[in-house]
Amino acid sequence: MTTPSLVALDMEGVLLEEVWLAIAAHTGIEKLRLTTRDVSDYDELMNMRLDILNKHGITLADLQSVIAESVKPLPGAVDFLNWIRRRLPVVILSDIFMEFVQPVVHLMEYPTILGNSLTVDPDSGMITKYHIRQRDGKRKAVQALRDIGYTVFAAGDSYNDLTMIKEADAGALFRAPEHIASAHPEIRTCSEYSELKTLIQSSLRLPLAA
Amino acid sequence: MTTPSLVALDMEGVLLEEVWLAIAAHTGIEKLRLTTRDVSDYDELMNMRLDILNKHGITLADLQSVIAESVKPLPGAVDFLNWIRRRLPVVILSDIFMEFVQPVVHLMEYPTILGNSLTVDPDSGMITKYHIRQRDGKRKAVQALRDIGYTVFAAGDSYNDLTMIKEADAGALFRAPEHIASAHPEIRTCSEYSELKTLIQSSLRLPLAA
Repeated sequence: MTTPSLVALDMEGVLLEEVWLAIAAHTGIEKLRLTTRDVSDYDELMNMRLDILNKHGITLADLQSVIAESVKPLPGAVDFLNWIRRRLPVVILSDIFMEFVQPVVHLMEYPTILGNSLTVDPDSGMITKYHIRQRDGKRKAVQALRDIGYTVFAAGDSYNDLTMIKEADAGALFRAPEHIASAHPEIRTCSEYSELKTLIQSSLRLPLAA
Repeated sequence: MTTPSLVALDMEGVLLEEVWLAIAAHTGIEKLRLTTRDVSDYDELMNMRLDILNKHGITLADLQSVIAESVKPLPGAVDFLNWIRRRLPVVILSDIFMEFVQPVVHLMEYPTILGNSLTVDPDSGMITKYHIRQRDGKRKAVQALRDIGYTVFAAGDSYNDLTMIKEADAGALFRAPEHIASAHPEIRTCSEYSELKTLIQSSLRLPLAA
């Protein structure tokens, strides 16, 4: 047998296009292109985003329409996901708001996503608050999965994936920006699903089935 | 917003036909029809099963062929599963051996299954050992999911689901045998997916979307 193993994956940038980039492109609001790479404080960044949406009168339903129209799984992502899911359980550990993923979750064939959530004003439809389920939630989820007996492989592309990758038994950065990768030479990096498959297979000692 | 919520489901009898019943039917070996309802000690039951398989020279590959041919999702199960998965993360908590589910996991559209595993002799292909990831693993998984911030609804059909249902914030027995249901009047029961949807929706206060 293989030890009970499980794969934890980040979603945006790894399986799905970046949602805020799509919203910025679609609305033409340049400031919505900013990410944690530009504004390091997440609360500051999110409050800025919610302010902008409110000023422009953009509702959650508007955003969901934009996402439904323009956000797609990355090429090869679903095949990659199903390649793992034929062998092992997969859990998506994402900071995405579940309301944002709802319009496109079927395109990824309904993976199990542990994410965050929003409060919406029922009258105006405007987003009034965001909720982080747990601080450092990706790392804590990996820890919880290890605690119930799993050997965990974790992969993500950015700052908020570093602690989960380090918490996991094995892991990799996937298509990470150069400055993140070079600041963490202790973490393996790769940029193609085929490489990530090989890393998963060797780290978890999976049978070399097709 | 809704509180971050998650649904934990048993698999056999809830989403998928019973695997050992299919194996018994296909091989014609009556003793393989016995379950924990007949032999209350799980280790005794599993050792008996492995003995029988060994005596008849039945390999894991043989069993996987039987399962691929004859085990199907229950009617309506995949629609039900996807109804939840459009709204919430779902985790399947099962005592099944992952090697048994592999031939049919695609028929359920690759849910995230936390199960058990087998050791197979590489030369003979015979099953030599079974591995329980964790004693009372379903309950501990629900506990872990609650610890990382989820309100959990759990449903299952049998004895081994009782502790996870009790550990969860809400739950139900689904198509449970009468003697199990009547021994646990504190647990709600239902027998149709439509009822289970209603229970999930009201327990987790989901929006009443289609």
